[in-house]
Amino acid sequence: MANILHRVGIKTTSIEAVYRALTSRNQLAAWWTTDTKGEGDKVGNIVAFRFNTDGFDMKVTKLDAPHHVEWEVVAGPAEWVGTTITFDLKQDGDYVILLFQHLNWREPVEFMHHCSTKWAIFLLSLKKLVETGKGEPFPDDVKIDNWN
Amino acid sequence: MANILHRVGIKTTSIEAVYRALTSRNQLAAWWTTDTKGEGDKVGNIVAFRFNTDGFDMKVTKLDAPHHVEWEVVAGPAEWVGTTITFDLKQDGDYVILLFQHLNWREPVEFMHHCSTKWAIFLLSLKKLVETGKGEPFPDDVKIDNWN
Repeated sequence: MANILHRVGIKTTSIEAVYRALTSRNQLAAWWTTDTKGEGDKVGNIVAFRFNTDGFDMKVTKLDAPHHVEWEVVAGPAEWVGTTITFDLKQDGDYVILLFQHLNWREPVEFMHHCSTKWAIFLLSLKKLVETGKGEPFPDDVKIDNWN
Repeated sequence: MANILHRVGIKTTSIEAVYRALTSRNQLAAWWTTDTKGEGDKVGNIVAFRFNTDGFDMKVTKLDAPHHVEWEVVAGPAEWVGTTITFDLKQDGDYVILLFQHLNWREPVEFMHHCSTKWAIFLLSLKKLVETGKGEPFPDDVKIDNWN
């Protein structure tokens, strides 16, 4: 099994604001993809993220406000289905530290390399959203390669 | 063992230009850190990268121009020493695709999460350098958290 890990620090004393960015539809749409359907604030809910025709359906499998959010990928590319995504939040001085994990990829395929870099881009978009009020969600996300 | 993976696509038909960005001191200093000493174009060479007082010494362990560069970390933070960094390049249409791996971390510690996100930032700086002639090396790199 292979995992993607990231860490970003968001300059805010409101850990609740970061938790909202991970659980409310409007906020998710403001940093990941504008085409987001469903609310992420209840265990069992499905949130659907689309990037033009492709995308992912996430089942909210664990919530511990305002510290922990966990999703299971229930639909999307074969490489993603069955993987788990976790967000852990903690206050550290002037920053809320976000530890991100996308766990249990079956193989470290080239697509996983792409997704790892792309997660960094989107987590920095989340940071920007909370710090400035404006993120860079798809389709206005930073492009990284020929797969985008 | 845990690994960091990334993929960036650099819009150029010169795979040699990307290879140079990974092997010449001047070019490494133009995307990773301005404080770079040593040339990376010969197996056995040591290249020293510094970020103020901290940094890494890399031994060039494998070169296959213009497709493959491999380093072993011989000095630096305990978590890095003994790990391996590889860069694989291939032309794909208008892009040179760079597959990056930082292999064999002993534990997926919080510092590894940070380094994963930071590698994304620096690989995008490399992309910018080759595409535009100007990267964003330390100390002008994009800051991601309270560890920077």
